[in-house]
Amino acid sequence: MSTIGTRAFHYFQKLKDANVPIDLIEKGQDRVIDASLTLIRERAKLKGELVRALGGALATTSLLGVPLGHNSSFLQGPAFAPPRIREAIWDGSTNSTTEEGKVLSDPRVLTDVGDVPVQEIRDCGVDDDKLMNVISESVKLVMEEDPLRPLVLGGDHSISFPVVRAVSEKLGGPVDVLHLDAHPDIYHAFEGNKYSHASSFARIMEGGYARRLLQVGIRSITSEGREQGKKFGVEQYEMRTFSRDRSFLENLKLGEGVKGVYISVDVDCLDPAFAPGVSHIEPGGLSFRDVLNILHNLQADVVAADVVEFNPQRDTVDGMTAMVAAKLVRELAAKISKN
Amino acid sequence: MSTIGTRAFHYFQKLKDANVPIDLIEKGQDRVIDASLTLIRERAKLKGELVRALGGALATTSLLGVPLGHNSSFLQGPAFAPPRIREAIWDGSTNSTTEEGKVLSDPRVLTDVGDVPVQEIRDCGVDDDKLMNVISESVKLVMEEDPLRPLVLGGDHSISFPVVRAVSEKLGGPVDVLHLDAHPDIYHAFEGNKYSHASSFARIMEGGYARRLLQVGIRSITSEGREQGKKFGVEQYEMRTFSRDRSFLENLKLGEGVKGVYISVDVDCLDPAFAPGVSHIEPGGLSFRDVLNILHNLQADVVAADVVEFNPQRDTVDGMTAMVAAKLVRELAAKISKN
Amino acid sequence: MSTIGTRAFHYFQKLKDANVPIDLIEKGQDRVIDASLTLIRERAKLKGELVRALGGALATTSLLGVPLGHNSSFLQGPAFAPPRIREAIWDGSTNSTTEEGKVLSDPRVLTDVGDVPVQEIRDCGVDDDKLMNVISESVKLVMEEDPLRPLVLGGDHSISFPVVRAVSEKLGGPVDVLHLDAHPDIYHAFEGNKYSHASSFARIMEGGYARRLLQVGIRSITSEGREQGKKFGVEQYEMRTFSRDRSFLENLKLGEGVKGVYISVDVDCLDPAFAPGVSHIEPGGLSFRDVLNILHNLQADVVAADVVEFNPQRDTVDGMTAMVAAKLVRELAAKISKN
Amino acid sequence: MSTIGTRAFHYFQKLKDANVPIDLIEKGQDRVIDASLTLIRERAKLKGELVRALGGALATTSLLGVPLGHNSSFLQGPAFAPPRIREAIWDGSTNSTTEEGKVLSDPRVLTDVGDVPVQEIRDCGVDDDKLMNVISESVKLVMEEDPLRPLVLGGDHSISFPVVRAVSEKLGGPVDVLHLDAHPDIYHAFEGNKYSHASSFARIMEGGYARRLLQVGIRSITSEGREQGKKFGVEQYEMRTFSRDRSFLENLKLGEGVKGVYISVDVDCLDPAFAPGVSHIEPGGLSFRDVLNILHNLQADVVAADVVEFNPQRDTVDGMTAMVAAKLVRELAAKISKN
Amino acid sequence: MSTIGTRAFHYFQKLKDANVPIDLIEKGQDRVIDASLTLIRERAKLKGELVRALGGALATTSLLGVPLGHNSSFLQGPAFAPPRIREAIWDGSTNSTTEEGKVLSDPRVLTDVGDVPVQEIRDCGVDDDKLMNVISESVKLVMEEDPLRPLVLGGDHSISFPVVRAVSEKLGGPVDVLHLDAHPDIYHAFEGNKYSHASSFARIMEGGYARRLLQVGIRSITSEGREQGKKFGVEQYEMRTFSRDRSFLENLKLGEGVKGVYISVDVDCLDPAFAPGVSHIEPGGLSFRDVLNILHNLQADVVAADVVEFNPQRDTVDGMTAMVAAKLVRELAAKISKN
Amino acid sequence: MSTIGTRAFHYFQKLKDANVPIDLIEKGQDRVIDASLTLIRERAKLKGELVRALGGALATTSLLGVPLGHNSSFLQGPAFAPPRIREAIWDGSTNSTTEEGKVLSDPRVLTDVGDVPVQEIRDCGVDDDKLMNVISESVKLVMEEDPLRPLVLGGDHSISFPVVRAVSEKLGGPVDVLHLDAHPDIYHAFEGNKYSHASSFARIMEGGYARRLLQVGIRSITSEGREQGKKFGVEQYEMRTFSRDRSFLENLKLGEGVKGVYISVDVDCLDPAFAPGVSHIEPGGLSFRDVLNILHNLQADVVAADVVEFNPQRDTVDGMTAMVAAKLVRELAAKISKN
Repeated sequence: MSTIGTRAFHYFQKLKDANVPIDLIEKGQDRVIDASLTLIRERAKLKGELVRALGGALATTSLLGVPLGHNSSFLQGPAFAPPRIREAIWDGSTNSTTEEGKVLSDPRVLTDVGDVPVQEIRDCGVDDDKLMNVISESVKLVMEEDPLRPLVLGGDHSISFPVVRAVSEKLGGPVDVLHLDAHPDIYHAFEGNKYSHASSFARIMEGGYARRLLQVGIRSITSEGREQGKKFGVEQYEMRTFSRDRSFLENLKLGEGVKGVYISVDVDCLDPAFAPGVSHIEPGGLSFRDVLNILHNLQADVVAADVVEFNPQRDTVDGMTAMVAAKLVRELAAKISKN
Repeated sequence: MSTIGTRAFHYFQKLKDANVPIDLIEKGQDRVIDASLTLIRERAKLKGELVRALGGALATTSLLGVPLGHNSSFLQGPAFAPPRIREAIWDGSTNSTTEEGKVLSDPRVLTDVGDVPVQEIRDCGVDDDKLMNVISESVKLVMEEDPLRPLVLGGDHSISFPVVRAVSEKLGGPVDVLHLDAHPDIYHAFEGNKYSHASSFARIMEGGYARRLLQVGIRSITSEGREQGKKFGVEQYEMRTFSRDRSFLENLKLGEGVKGVYISVDVDCLDPAFAPGVSHIEPGGLSFRDVLNILHNLQADVVAADVVEFNPQRDTVDGMTAMVAAKLVRELAAKISKN
Repeated sequence: MSTIGTRAFHYFQKLKDANVPIDLIEKGQDRVIDASLTLIRERAKLKGELVRALGGALATTSLLGVPLGHNSSFLQGPAFAPPRIREAIWDGSTNSTTEEGKVLSDPRVLTDVGDVPVQEIRDCGVDDDKLMNVISESVKLVMEEDPLRPLVLGGDHSISFPVVRAVSEKLGGPVDVLHLDAHPDIYHAFEGNKYSHASSFARIMEGGYARRLLQVGIRSITSEGREQGKKFGVEQYEMRTFSRDRSFLENLKLGEGVKGVYISVDVDCLDPAFAPGVSHIEPGGLSFRDVLNILHNLQADVVAADVVEFNPQRDTVDGMTAMVAAKLVRELAAKISKN
Repeated sequence: MSTIGTRAFHYFQKLKDANVPIDLIEKGQDRVIDASLTLIRERAKLKGELVRALGGALATTSLLGVPLGHNSSFLQGPAFAPPRIREAIWDGSTNSTTEEGKVLSDPRVLTDVGDVPVQEIRDCGVDDDKLMNVISESVKLVMEEDPLRPLVLGGDHSISFPVVRAVSEKLGGPVDVLHLDAHPDIYHAFEGNKYSHASSFARIMEGGYARRLLQVGIRSITSEGREQGKKFGVEQYEMRTFSRDRSFLENLKLGEGVKGVYISVDVDCLDPAFAPGVSHIEPGGLSFRDVLNILHNLQADVVAADVVEFNPQRDTVDGMTAMVAAKLVRELAAKISKN
Repeated sequence: MSTIGTRAFHYFQKLKDANVPIDLIEKGQDRVIDASLTLIRERAKLKGELVRALGGALATTSLLGVPLGHNSSFLQGPAFAPPRIREAIWDGSTNSTTEEGKVLSDPRVLTDVGDVPVQEIRDCGVDDDKLMNVISESVKLVMEEDPLRPLVLGGDHSISFPVVRAVSEKLGGPVDVLHLDAHPDIYHAFEGNKYSHASSFARIMEGGYARRLLQVGIRSITSEGREQGKKFGVEQYEMRTFSRDRSFLENLKLGEGVKGVYISVDVDCLDPAFAPGVSHIEPGGLSFRDVLNILHNLQADVVAADVVEFNPQRDTVDGMTAMVAAKLVRELAAKISKN
Repeated sequence: MSTIGTRAFHYFQKLKDANVPIDLIEKGQDRVIDASLTLIRERAKLKGELVRALGGALATTSLLGVPLGHNSSFLQGPAFAPPRIREAIWDGSTNSTTEEGKVLSDPRVLTDVGDVPVQEIRDCGVDDDKLMNVISESVKLVMEEDPLRPLVLGGDHSISFPVVRAVSEKLGGPVDVLHLDAHPDIYHAFEGNKYSHASSFARIMEGGYARRLLQVGIRSITSEGREQGKKFGVEQYEMRTFSRDRSFLENLKLGEGVKGVYISVDVDCLDPAFAPGVSHIEPGGLSFRDVLNILHNLQADVVAADVVEFNPQRDTVDGMTAMVAAKLVRELAAKISKN
């Protein structure tokens, strides 16, 4: 329903059409982008320094919020997700220990570098080519601060492309991607938008950022989705056959011979009974325990991850899906971190 | 809570008791019924002509809405369901391909002849004997237009009786019925109402319209329900033993030696976690995937079907159960149609 | 969010582009339209006969539902309103006496001819020019049955144009229109749609169907809205000055020298506190009592009316706005009827 | 959010600090406690007399409400649960037969002695030591009336301690406890409160009231939880390994060699998809059918039970979790009663 | 929807029809009633002693809950109201000072004797004649403890009859009654029930318990309501003329020459915008400020009062109407108490 | 419920207590603060340049979000407000013209410099003294860019102190303050917190930043609130006397002889019927039209303003209060801007 981003973009077009010198606009945009990246660099640096000062961590999960919703074809609510997920992670109704015993309140396990100021950058009329670069740069700034590893809070699924690109570029080679979702998100473009949240994995495969791509939870797929899957050699596991595939998926070993494993969790991989707060209600999905079984048993060096498409505007009044997204983040944080 | 129908009926009784000639009333009612059936006939005819003009369809699913809620013992909200289900079928958050690849936007797969004007007919004081005949006639008008096959949108479960009756009469013999429900709906009568939504399958079995009747998802059943089941030779699969019965139910083969198979899906066969928008919250039901596994693997020539008891007045604010009912309709449409 | 209508229209365009003969389509559409009008004629005739048989009524209000939502620029939920309003009129939580003592259960006060089958007609690919004519014809069919006077249940505000047109044509001259709304709905066209719910009063004024047009409750108006108002001589009473205008508006006398008075109530004339279930939340509106004071004290021969833009998809879970819309209908019915 | 209890306690402290003689206060409190117990005794006596007069019952389930919420660390809504659960047990949308055929409307199966007036007692300034004794005494008063067996409606989980204590003391020895919960509730104390709902099973084990304690559904546990578990010899079954433990848990045999079996069901043992109306949203829990499979197949002489932590203030608007809690109560009642 | 009470009553009828000696039942019922009254007596006594020990209070408001909902013709939710109102009175979002400066946390201003155990008494099969007596007796027990004055928390409006009866009998003569409501509640009987919540003021007037009865906020009234009003000399102020009556009603002086003034506030006197949590949505009511203006400016010795018909099952998720009911109670408590 | 901020603060305390050198922490914090202010400076500069390039604006409203919720005594949801208000300002259901005709899509009327990164700064362990300075500095950075004037989006009411301080310091003298609120927010400190949202106006008056302070809408005030009011010479207009004060308040003239007028609107000045999405439900408030009448008729040079205490976690599912807050912002923007 919201068209905030679109509005800003058109408005800057109008400025250009008026007397306002394009030079003035673009210089201002560049200064804003530079300042934004500086702010992320400083936060990452401080958090990295602290973890290193404490010592003993080989890998520390660092949250990075990307409140971007405009590349969704339907609802833009995921732009509001990162602060809600953070609140739920530390909600007083639960404690800070994960299911397998990691203690999240230890900064060597989990830290946070805050959000990329996506809305402010867009409100300055910056287009998506530049914005995607800002996201990639932000991810790299986190990775620069050893031992931090990024766990990105979306945002819609379009953010996985700049994030995986950054991870692969920074590590110097492709990764294996485990992608949990109701949809393959592998259209060449959706309604003409190459950055659409329905196209991110086409971009990732084209760019060579992933060696293997496993898609799990799929239950809304068109013939184009299946063809693109074949073209890129994607391993698509549809819900139709989940009872048959279950034991395979609950015993995965990934990432050998590449730079590591990336996990992308679209909250709508879950059945809407378990996660009603999503833009695309697609019945027949995974249970929360199914997802945890897959993640807990995965053998992999997880170098980065994202949790995307939680839409707070569709959540229950008591925020059940926020708690669900937060627990996914918590368990992924435990998976990534090494002490 | 609503008593619209009852009100209309009593009001016409009062008219009869007053000076208004009964002849005037009944002639008017008959003219309204005739006009209603003519309207359905014309819609079915146009849709049939179009499908035949396009060519190549052996069986095309045609929606027929029956917005009837007054035979529910509890809430009458299912009368509001058909337009909400239609909206959800075409909701922008999903696409028009079913899980096994049928494309619903092809009119040879799915068409629609609209609703029987149930509320207007009742508001003219027509009683349930006549109304049930109107529903049966409407179903037959759809079947007349080869290759259309009716997929009926309830309404409460009382509509399954006139629909199955019409299907059996039109085809010239009994069908096998696969009935997914939390309740057996096989009381002889409920609170004196032989057309009650809790009695439809007693009527179907008495009428000889079904050879086999398999009931799946049962978890609210009284001793009368079990006795009636025995009396009519019903195969009742209770949730108590679902883990034992699962593999049998996920590999059904039905309809051989009879005129085909009819599928009746009461949305409350699902656990209320998956479908909260129903009148009867009965925990312990099927998951959405359980239902799809049963339907996808069923070997049968499905000649007609219904999806009933979705109650929009109990749905979540974002219409999760509407999406659930719509996906049941979508997957059933794929099951019925043949190109 | 819904685009059901649009979908149907495009789909029939595609049929035309294919091999399907246009003749076949158009003949079928005409038969469906004819059958629809016949059904409304028969219902109106029966209800008219009954009222006349009971005797003594000079004017009887007759409900006519027009479930049309596709000419809304924003949400299409008003298409679901008529059955919900009817349910609320007869809700068990209130009685059938209006504030000034009319008894609604007397058919000489209030009767009902049901809905125009708008969705089914559109699903047959009929365009808006024809559809608007069907609505106008339906209104005239009600007026044919003396002493019935139409009280139309919207639907979005686009329906006021064909309704007022029919009333004026049937009575043979213009009427005075009292229009309660947050918006003037007098754009020349909105996003290219001359039938938009934001343009209905431009069409009414152009057609010469209204002599005076009084707009009350206005609080969202652009410069075009004010200019169009001036051009057509509209009397616009904005909420900004309501405390000053109140005593004038609570003592209106309208309709002298013309064929009578038409009242059009957009539910969003009320502040959203009183009527949250609308598509356009525009704070700062009338209280429910303000509206009743205006209607109760109006001196006029009200020949027809409408209540539009109630959106059940935005109502509270217990249907507060449905009760509000229903009470507007109830009090208007009392205003129209004469015994 | 509520601090009613705390408020009352502090207020009586203030009275003591003022001139009000402590003697006057304590005598009044004791009279109120005595009158409260007398009222429970009389209700239990009447219900016991009736069951015995009807004859034939070896064990009859008797509900006893304990509306206590102040020992929750987070939300106090469970204090409002007992009347809502009772309403849902007899809700018109379901019948009075349990899944295995027990008829709940037979008083020999299920009767009710009402609520302990917890809030009134606390409002008189009575502290938790005395209040816990009142709860224990109330349970014993029910057990005194053979063949009544208590099924306690919480309240938060802190009530399980005084209830199990009473059962064990009355029967003269320890019982086996089957405890379904997301949390082990076995902290030594929580935020200094030894009666905390997170500590009840530490109290039970310390007191020697249970021989075996089986905890099922656990998915939020800290290192202290695991250590306390070891210390007390608790058998903890975590959700992480439920697929492995399932067949063991669905075939339990308990209570041999002790005084019987006690079942404590925290509603949050269920995944929040199945029971959203709880204070602690902890995704990844049991399905409703999982719980029923465990209970139906349990071989045991169940001497008492509780259903706790349903929080009506977090339930869906149509009370789905109330129906879930009620069905747990219904099936437990069937398990306990013997005719 | 709930029929808890009815169920209990029929069930005891069945016991009588069986072999169970009526004597056994009735003696048990009497013992339960006696114990119930004893418990209220003790709580009132303790609270009275404390207030007197503190000294200085001429009149102290004492809450008394009457959780009775079965005499409502529509929904029974008001039975759940008293604990919710209490919680909201002390809610942490507001402080304990009333608008005119009374401090509610001073026990000399406001105390509480808890609830009459209505549901437990009914569950023992006690009929309404006896139950109404228990309510009257409970009110008298509070009044016995000078300076306590009862402020009763409903419950549906049927409770005003036994409460006003007790007040009048205890004081030895009639009172003046200020009654704020959407409905006159003065039917002779409703659906055959003389204790109906729609008949309480007919009982009060017949009994001679009130001299003057002023009804304010009326907007749903039938001809019987107006005739009964005339018959009993009731002063009915309808909302239709509120703008005219406002200054009179905001300057009332009542109670001279009688035993004092009783105020009965049905929460639905408010427009549903201000109080959505009621069983009967009747638009066009008073604003919250209108009600406070009437109460603040009333000149009267208020001897007792009630706040009824708040229905928590229809409240918003964040309990707005609970806060509204609580503020009515708070301001009435300030009006009643004298120090 | 949330304690995010507190958590971060304690966590950095722990770091200090550990081996981590305080120097490392503080330098990092300062770098993060510097980068944050640089980012705001660049955004303000770009927006200022653009407005100046377009020319002709004497005063342009610029939004500045301050997502701070931790100084609320009750709920912290206002921290989530700024993005929701922005979305509602541009919501497709309304247009961009204000009631008096200003066009908001003209950047010379309204521009936006984004949010102060409050949560990220706090997550780095920065305390409230420094944080309040960052907010003040941010406001000054906006005012530096002539003709921009800040309209601050809260956040809880604690932010008004640093904002008014900055405005007064930047302009070089006190302003007059018009403060709309249910509460006076003038406690010396609340629960020991001098920055509490209940103390902001005590800080403002102590600092000499305001000459006159008018408080309108007050209906929850303790004796301390009234005494502090007297001490600081505050003009408190309570709702109790609003009908008497209305004409004065609807014709205010402020700011003569000082540096201008500041308007602070706490959304809870409105009755909760009009704005349910607030932390403190205090019935009996202003209507939305009352507020607009006060603002529209105010004669003043408004130099800055804020809209605070909108709590999205308590809003209705369709975001009614977001629309209310947005309309307050829109009309204030029109009041501030001059072209």
